[in-house]
Amino acid sequence: MKPSLYLLPALLLCSMKVIAQQRPPSISSPEVHPDHSITFKYFSRKAQKVTLNGEFLKAPVALMKDTSGIWSVTVPPVKADIYPYSFSVDSVQVADPNNTYIFANERFKRSIVDVPGDQPLVHSLQNVPHGKISYRYYKSATLGMTRQLLVYTPPGFNPNGKTKYPVLYLIHGGSDTEETWTKVGRANLIADNLIAQGKAKPMLIVMPYGNVRPAPMPDFTKDMVADIVPFIEANYPVIMESKGRAVAGFSVGGGQTLNIGLTNPSTFAYICSYAPYTATEEFQKNFANWTPDAAKINSQLKLFTVSVGTDDFLYEPVKKNIAMFEDKKIKLKSYIVPGGHTWMNCKQYLATTLQELFN
Amino acid sequence: MKPSLYLLPALLLCSMKVIAQQRPPSISSPEVHPDHSITFKYFSRKAQKVTLNGEFLKAPVALMKDTSGIWSVTVPPVKADIYPYSFSVDSVQVADPNNTYIFANERFKRSIVDVPGDQPLVHSLQNVPHGKISYRYYKSATLGMTRQLLVYTPPGFNPNGKTKYPVLYLIHGGSDTEETWTKVGRANLIADNLIAQGKAKPMLIVMPYGNVRPAPMPDFTKDMVADIVPFIEANYPVIMESKGRAVAGFSVGGGQTLNIGLTNPSTFAYICSYAPYTATEEFQKNFANWTPDAAKINSQLKLFTVSVGTDDFLYEPVKKNIAMFEDKKIKLKSYIVPGGHTWMNCKQYLATTLQELFN
Repeated sequence: MKPSLYLLPALLLCSMKVIAQQRPPSISSPEVHPDHSITFKYFSRKAQKVTLNGEFLKAPVALMKDTSGIWSVTVPPVKADIYPYSFSVDSVQVADPNNTYIFANERFKRSIVDVPGDQPLVHSLQNVPHGKISYRYYKSATLGMTRQLLVYTPPGFNPNGKTKYPVLYLIHGGSDTEETWTKVGRANLIADNLIAQGKAKPMLIVMPYGNVRPAPMPDFTKDMVADIVPFIEANYPVIMESKGRAVAGFSVGGGQTLNIGLTNPSTFAYICSYAPYTATEEFQKNFANWTPDAAKINSQLKLFTVSVGTDDFLYEPVKKNIAMFEDKKIKLKSYIVPGGHTWMNCKQYLATTLQELFN
Repeated sequence: MKPSLYLLPALLLCSMKVIAQQRPPSISSPEVHPDHSITFKYFSRKAQKVTLNGEFLKAPVALMKDTSGIWSVTVPPVKADIYPYSFSVDSVQVADPNNTYIFANERFKRSIVDVPGDQPLVHSLQNVPHGKISYRYYKSATLGMTRQLLVYTPPGFNPNGKTKYPVLYLIHGGSDTEETWTKVGRANLIADNLIAQGKAKPMLIVMPYGNVRPAPMPDFTKDMVADIVPFIEANYPVIMESKGRAVAGFSVGGGQTLNIGLTNPSTFAYICSYAPYTATEEFQKNFANWTPDAAKINSQLKLFTVSVGTDDFLYEPVKKNIAMFEDKKIKLKSYIVPGGHTWMNCKQYLATTLQELFN
């Protein structure tokens, strides 16, 4: 027998009909080098122009083609973090075909590159006990459908034990999905690491799907309070009081967090809003002419934070909302940090506020 | 205030820097109509030619552009099933940007369309109790790294109860990932439905990542036997005998199944190989000059099945392997059915053999 037969790499196979079609060569992309420079590759014999657009770049950079049709570029060392990127192939935006790490999103397909730190970062996979992420279905009476949500349970979690856990309800951004907080935000690893260091309390993190279109946005508030929280409390050993419930979210989810949390302070004692988008009918209805009993709300809430980056395109409206809440005497802790409206920032907002929950 | 302010759909937002860039219009794609025809849409003002390539089509079909830059095509009714598809935009293959259902794969990015049956199909989300899918990390001593795997636990599963469950170890195809069996194969819903109907035993389904490159392929066999099985048995209430263990897989994973199962018949009493790809060094080493003690193996195995479709590009080699096993007097049940090397077929192989496990 010819050895070459056995060297036919499994790589060249795929589990579909396209197997019979001509397959591109095996490519490893992205490759993060020890100095934090990164090589990106894309295969196309036909393309005229391939560029890389990454959130670690100020502007797209061009890839160069070799004689075999492999386009590549190596970018100079970048700061350790997790970054979204995509290719533009003759002006068509594509995710990296050779990278399984996809940005979970409804409106675009981008890939993710993880540049590890010289020291492990708060979102890195470290040698610590790991919790589990469970994909579950729940029935939403509000929306009249069965929906999926993700539940992080911490290391050592015992569903039948005597320990009652607090729960963080964590909402993604506007066109994200219930998977974005784990796939891009690494919420599970951030929790694993902070719990291992004793910096965060062991807790459940529930990640629902916040988009309810074509239903009106306030239906998600109802879904959260009337369907999601009861589902979790019926199925997990959790603290069934406001002091054991937190709600947090990013961007559109940050706005939803304010709507859900501040209209239900007897349900959630912790509210953490990350770069909230608030130009919604629901927010206007709730807060344009809000006359809160501030003393009461302040006594109900154990923590209310608003985070935003100074380069965030929502920086000005977020500052206005912070001022609005302060004007109404609502006690609030604001985290104004460098950076933009990115998941790089968002992970830091979570890592910071996770340490303040359920203390 | 202008109502238009509040009509700014959250749709137009995204949770990233690209927010500031021009965003495409909101598009719903794919849309499956009641008659099972499907409309696919893609937005591009610049593209010259957009085609649809789907596993329900014999050949790609062209989309037509309207004046707003939205390309669309409606394909005639197709048989209810779940199909992979992609667009070709000026010859660049892209997943559908507006569809969150992605084919989990290392080598390409395609989307998935679910055409529901007039009656629920075996893989449909039905109104039955649902199990959970857990994403977990385990340490692979064989590979010297922490790896991810998925664990399906059935409805009513109690990690601390007295019930000991059997376990199916289920391996994906050659360039797939540990998510492909749930994201494309809907293994969890198939199990939910068959368990609800009393047609399958409540069981765990463990879905590891079968690709170990650049390590040699036999290292996955070691990883399975020395790392994955012990991890599961240390962490779940399962039957720790061969009669409580099954191994199954598709394509390259079907070949791995034969390697893992037939070289470890005292570990796995059930072996189900779906359209196995066997042109590997490991398979040749194990089986080219195999002189099995057939009577012993037949007494150890409670079930050994091989499934393949008559249009599968592996049909002939699979038939040869079936003949080879029969020639060596190994008892085997073959399922030769219509269809190709597709996940449409693969789901059926699982649904058929799941009913024969652990009886």
